[in-house]
Amino acid sequence: MRDQYYEQLDAIVDDLVDLTGTVRFAVGQATKALLEADVQVAESVIDGDKDIDEATETIEERALLLLATQQPVATDLRQLVATLRMLADLQRMGDLSVHVAKIARRRMPESAVPLNLHPTIVAMAAVADSMIDSASRIVANRDVAAAAQLETEDDEMDTLRKDLFRTLLADSWDHGVEPAVDVALLGRYYERIGDHAVSMARRVVYLVTGQLT
Amino acid sequence: MRDQYYEQLDAIVDDLVDLTGTVRFAVGQATKALLEADVQVAESVIDGDKDIDEATETIEERALLLLATQQPVATDLRQLVATLRMLADLQRMGDLSVHVAKIARRRMPESAVPLNLHPTIVAMAAVADSMIDSASRIVANRDVAAAAQLETEDDEMDTLRKDLFRTLLADSWDHGVEPAVDVALLGRYYERIGDHAVSMARRVVYLVTGQLT
Repeated sequence: MRDQYYEQLDAIVDDLVDLTGTVRFAVGQATKALLEADVQVAESVIDGDKDIDEATETIEERALLLLATQQPVATDLRQLVATLRMLADLQRMGDLSVHVAKIARRRMPESAVPLNLHPTIVAMAAVADSMIDSASRIVANRDVAAAAQLETEDDEMDTLRKDLFRTLLADSWDHGVEPAVDVALLGRYYERIGDHAVSMARRVVYLVTGQLT
Repeated sequence: MRDQYYEQLDAIVDDLVDLTGTVRFAVGQATKALLEADVQVAESVIDGDKDIDEATETIEERALLLLATQQPVATDLRQLVATLRMLADLQRMGDLSVHVAKIARRRMPESAVPLNLHPTIVAMAAVADSMIDSASRIVANRDVAAAAQLETEDDEMDTLRKDLFRTLLADSWDHGVEPAVDVALLGRYYERIGDHAVSMARRVVYLVTGQLT
């Protein structure tokens, strides 16, 4: 009975890690759509979000079923509750990649990001990608030490977002209002994607140490 | 034993409803800080967010304790899981009111919103306020019929956000880039506050009907 329980719990965590990989790919493709003004890639991110939603709901149902049938206590219970919270994070990260793809699509055939800001967006996307990858490994291995690294990356993201805003609010900004608004929203979306990765890691830390950070 | 369980569950739902009221007040005060450029009100929203975070964590702990000690099944289990998800919504709405208050504070002594856009922001804030109030009543009374009304308000919010963007992207916009970026972010924040109210209502609908909308 208990063995079967842990098998099912492990399967749920495995699927959560797989879904994190799917979300990471979606964020990467959204960035590609944005920087290369690629309409097909943008459409694939937008259409693909329903798969992320369905996977989220399937895992959630299974976690609830396991809660209902096995009635876990203490740490096992917390694990399942943490899973539900992390699913909400992943679903939201999927939504955010759709927001990025939609900004990309609206401005085609041009890129929504002025060329001089490509390096900053590339850097933010790289940090986001690394943060999702870290979150995935933290979930898979309960690697609490790696969570501290993730907080450092979150600080990097914050610095990049501030750089971005400084550029678009500077007197030298000559791209007009629409690109400024798009870039401001994009900065916010990447920052939020990173926040959700941090939130996932914190859930694991709480599971392992009992401390809310 | 069961009676005691329902007493504790009711107490948790009552506290969730109270917390919704606190969040509603924070959003309202953030709007006041924004439109009246009132620094004290902005600071009170920013400082007050830790109380929302603490209340969220206290209720979460109690829900987990009830899960662990009473091991509810079926509907009762779903109620507690829904409570955990709604707490995440409320915490996030609190964060969003802080974002609004920080934009207000950064632009003082001026209002971050150009005068010609005050009516649109007032309307968005009013819709957000009504949506949070509806969500609170839906949670308190399990009033599934009222959830449909909330979806209508969400459409109104969407229309207002589009109006806002149309104004700030029009050729007639003469306030420059910084107010445009602030207003775009503000529009996004109010829209997200409304989304979280909808998310709370959908959790209740799911509880009562078993259908994810």
